[in-house]
Amino acid sequence: MKRGERFAYWTQRLVSEPGRRFSLDELRAPLGTPKSTLSGDLADLKRFFAEVGAGQVETWTGAAGGVRFRPLRPSSLLRQWAEELRQELSQESRVLPGGLLYLQDVLFDPFWAQRIGEILASLFASREPEYVLTVETRGVPPALFAARALGVKMVLARRTSRPAEGPAVHIHYRSQSSDRIQTMSLARRALPPGSRVLIVDDFMRGGGTLRGMEQLLEEFSCEVVGRGVVLATAVPEEKVVRDFVSILWLEEVQEGMKPRLRLGHLLEEEGQRDQP
Amino acid sequence: MKRGERFAYWTQRLVSEPGRRFSLDELRAPLGTPKSTLSGDLADLKRFFAEVGAGQVETWTGAAGGVRFRPLRPSSLLRQWAEELRQELSQESRVLPGGLLYLQDVLFDPFWAQRIGEILASLFASREPEYVLTVETRGVPPALFAARALGVKMVLARRTSRPAEGPAVHIHYRSQSSDRIQTMSLARRALPPGSRVLIVDDFMRGGGTLRGMEQLLEEFSCEVVGRGVVLATAVPEEKVVRDFVSILWLEEVQEGMKPRLRLGHLLEEEGQRDQP
Repeated sequence: MKRGERFAYWTQRLVSEPGRRFSLDELRAPLGTPKSTLSGDLADLKRFFAEVGAGQVETWTGAAGGVRFRPLRPSSLLRQWAEELRQELSQESRVLPGGLLYLQDVLFDPFWAQRIGEILASLFASREPEYVLTVETRGVPPALFAARALGVKMVLARRTSRPAEGPAVHIHYRSQSSDRIQTMSLARRALPPGSRVLIVDDFMRGGGTLRGMEQLLEEFSCEVVGRGVVLATAVPEEKVVRDFVSILWLEEVQEGMKPRLRLGHLLEEEGQRDQP
Repeated sequence: MKRGERFAYWTQRLVSEPGRRFSLDELRAPLGTPKSTLSGDLADLKRFFAEVGAGQVETWTGAAGGVRFRPLRPSSLLRQWAEELRQELSQESRVLPGGLLYLQDVLFDPFWAQRIGEILASLFASREPEYVLTVETRGVPPALFAARALGVKMVLARRTSRPAEGPAVHIHYRSQSSDRIQTMSLARRALPPGSRVLIVDDFMRGGGTLRGMEQLLEEFSCEVVGRGVVLATAVPEEKVVRDFVSILWLEEVQEGMKPRLRLGHLLEEEGQRDQP
């Protein structure tokens, strides 16, 4: 097998299933490649992927040796994707009656959902989350793709608990936007106590929903290692959670004019970034 | 740039964003590769990817030339993945009080969600769906990854309509399992009339929810080109929809014993498969 075909094969396997830890045998067996050749190829790929900003190849040696790829992207690319998202959401046709911004199509478009997930994963990878938590429904795509890029599982809190989830913990929290008490529940078996958790949501106004997820995690004795949202509103300025990242900020949305959005702060200031 | 690195680069770009149609310039510019070299490489990759079952590389020539990759997998691999999923779900620890099967962790695990999505995409690709529709919440991961593998958008029906979706069409349908009338809504702007739509859901008992999605699509003058679910129950034998694919069938689940599941029919009979 020639070097080009071998490189295409390793790349396809690794990039198709990011976060998955492959044993060297699992990779080399289908092509019948000697172990030493594979090791050399992986070292070359690791260097090359870092160079072109494709992501991180990690290798382990020894008996439990293996390799995994994670699409953790350089900050220049994250900023470019965020800017493209900003432009996509700044169209006047997205303003709904009542001055709301339509973004469901973008959240559920696999192309955008994956980019959003990879932005959040890249920002929080150094904090080593073991799970990504969101609450249904629109937070699912960003959370799912963030978990994919990090190589961890996603966990879903429900608005109402379902029989098919078994025993669940319920909490009540105040939604800042509706000023109403809401419920959130999480299946007992969904999350082991003591886990490191990244919280993700699509939209944040006052921060009540994120605060609710924090409360839920307290009940599971889990640690919140990061909070990321796709879009936060500039008003109210005061949020009930601190230390969160929003990819974009919604500054103004009104019928008859283009929505005004700006890039999130942490994408601009290198020093505060957690990018590997 | 050597052939190995070039192949790794094209593969990484194509496999990272399946379904996306890249122009040749977009691919070759970052490496400064001549067009003729890229074209030759893509022809080699196309052949090689087909050979190892990685998926389909499609190329267009001429002024609007380009290339896209879709992870449409050979039936042997789909069957292997379905069997691995069957084993994962056949654990006694998954049986909840009341004889329900716990599968939420698998549905929201990006690793399984992607495989499930790629199975459904591979089965229905030849019917050329333009959208994948599901209803919240647990159908989202399989639908999202099926849409990703097909290179199309996902569309989400809601249980209750939200202001942030604008005008929406509501329908009522009878849920076979609860024997109650339920509501489903879809934003007017979510789906252009006349689209070809693949319907996806996580679980099917009587088929009422799938039938509800069909009714919704009738209101949008859209054509249902396929119906795929992750898990269907063997009982009741009579479903209110016909011509659907279920990856797995749940034959029996009871407290104190392992759940009994079998592979779906269409994975076993080549003739009925729509695999390209």
